[in-house]
Amino acid sequence: MSAIDALIEALQILPGVGPKSAQRMALHLLLREREGGDRLAKAMEVAMRRVGVCQACRNLTEHPLCGLCEDPRRDSSLLCVVESPADVLALEQAGGFRGYYFVLNGRLSPLDGVGPEQLGMDQLLDRVAQLAPEEVILATNPTVEGEATAHYVAQLLEDKVGRVSRIAHGVPLGSEIEYTDGGTLTHALLGRRDVEK
Amino acid sequence: MSAIDALIEALQILPGVGPKSAQRMALHLLLREREGGDRLAKAMEVAMRRVGVCQACRNLTEHPLCGLCEDPRRDSSLLCVVESPADVLALEQAGGFRGYYFVLNGRLSPLDGVGPEQLGMDQLLDRVAQLAPEEVILATNPTVEGEATAHYVAQLLEDKVGRVSRIAHGVPLGSEIEYTDGGTLTHALLGRRDVEK
Repeated sequence: MSAIDALIEALQILPGVGPKSAQRMALHLLLREREGGDRLAKAMEVAMRRVGVCQACRNLTEHPLCGLCEDPRRDSSLLCVVESPADVLALEQAGGFRGYYFVLNGRLSPLDGVGPEQLGMDQLLDRVAQLAPEEVILATNPTVEGEATAHYVAQLLEDKVGRVSRIAHGVPLGSEIEYTDGGTLTHALLGRRDVEK
Repeated sequence: MSAIDALIEALQILPGVGPKSAQRMALHLLLREREGGDRLAKAMEVAMRRVGVCQACRNLTEHPLCGLCEDPRRDSSLLCVVESPADVLALEQAGGFRGYYFVLNGRLSPLDGVGPEQLGMDQLLDRVAQLAPEEVILATNPTVEGEATAHYVAQLLEDKVGRVSRIAHGVPLGSEIEYTDGGTLTHALLGRRDVEK
C-alpha cells in the first residue's frame, strides 16, 4: 500500500471521517499543509505516548494528577461525577462549578461488558474518602444508561456522603416549549421550583 | 500547552474540522483508539516525509514516477489535464479513461499569485513532447478559474497536438432538468448530439 493510501485509510479511524473526507484531508495536508501535517503527526504521537488518566479523578492528563485535581483553590465540598472528559470541558467552559470532578470514562452498559469495575468505582470511593465532600453531584447523561449509572453511584455513596444530587433536567435555554419532547417537558414540570419573590 | 490541547489545536488544520470536532477527535483517540492514533501519527509522518510529485505528471507519489505514469499498458495517445490529484482519483474510479494524466496542482488565479509557472507549464510541454499524444483532454473544473486555465492550456498546446478537447458540460446523470441551473442547461443545449439510430 502506498504512503498516501495508508494515510487515507488511517484517517478513517477519526470519528465522522469516511473514505471521501479522509481523501480530502490527506490531499489537503500533502498539497497545502506539509508543515501542519508534520506538526499534527508529532502532536498525535506525543499525546498517544504521554497522556494517561489522572490518579485522583480519571480525567485525561499527561501528569500523575490533572490540573483540576492539583488546583487547591477549588471547592473540596463538591464533587461532580461525569461520564467523559468532554463533559468536564463543557462544564468548565460553562463556568459556575468550582468543585472537583470524577470521570467515569464510560457508563454502565452490561451488554457492552461495562460494569462497575470499568468505571473505577473503587477509585471513586477512595476519592470520596480522601476529599470528604459534603455533596456529590451526578452529571451523567440523561439517557437510559446514564440514568442507570447515576442510580448505581447514588446507592453506592448513599451512606458515605451527606447529599447526593442529580443535575436538573428540563427545557434548555433558547429552545421553545412547543418543540420540546414530552420526556423533557415531564421532567421540567416535575422539577418546577417556586418563583422567587 | 498540554499534550491534549496541542493535539486539539493541531487537528484543526484538517479541512472541515473546527474546535468542537477537533476535541471530539482527540478524546476519541485518547479514550478508545490509542493503537489507531499511533498508526495514524506514523502514517502521517511517513506520508509527509516521503510523498512528493511525479516527475512526469505532477501527481502525488512517493516514487520518482507515479504508478499511472509507470504503467506501460495505458494509452499514450491520450493525455488528460486536471487540476488536482483528487480529480485523477475520481476519473480512475469512474473508469473509462485509459490514457495518461497531467496534474496542474492548482488553477490560474492571478489574485492568489498562481500563474503558469506554478502550474508546471514547462513540465506539461516536456510531457507532451515526450509522449506525443494525439489528443489532450482538458478536464479542469467548470468554474471561472478552471475555464480560464483550460483556455490558457489550449492556446499553449494549439500547434503541438493534433486535437485539444474539453470535457462535456451538461445535465449530470440522476438529476432533474427542473432543478438544473441555467448555465448548465445552456451548456447542455449547446453541446447536444445527434441521437444514434
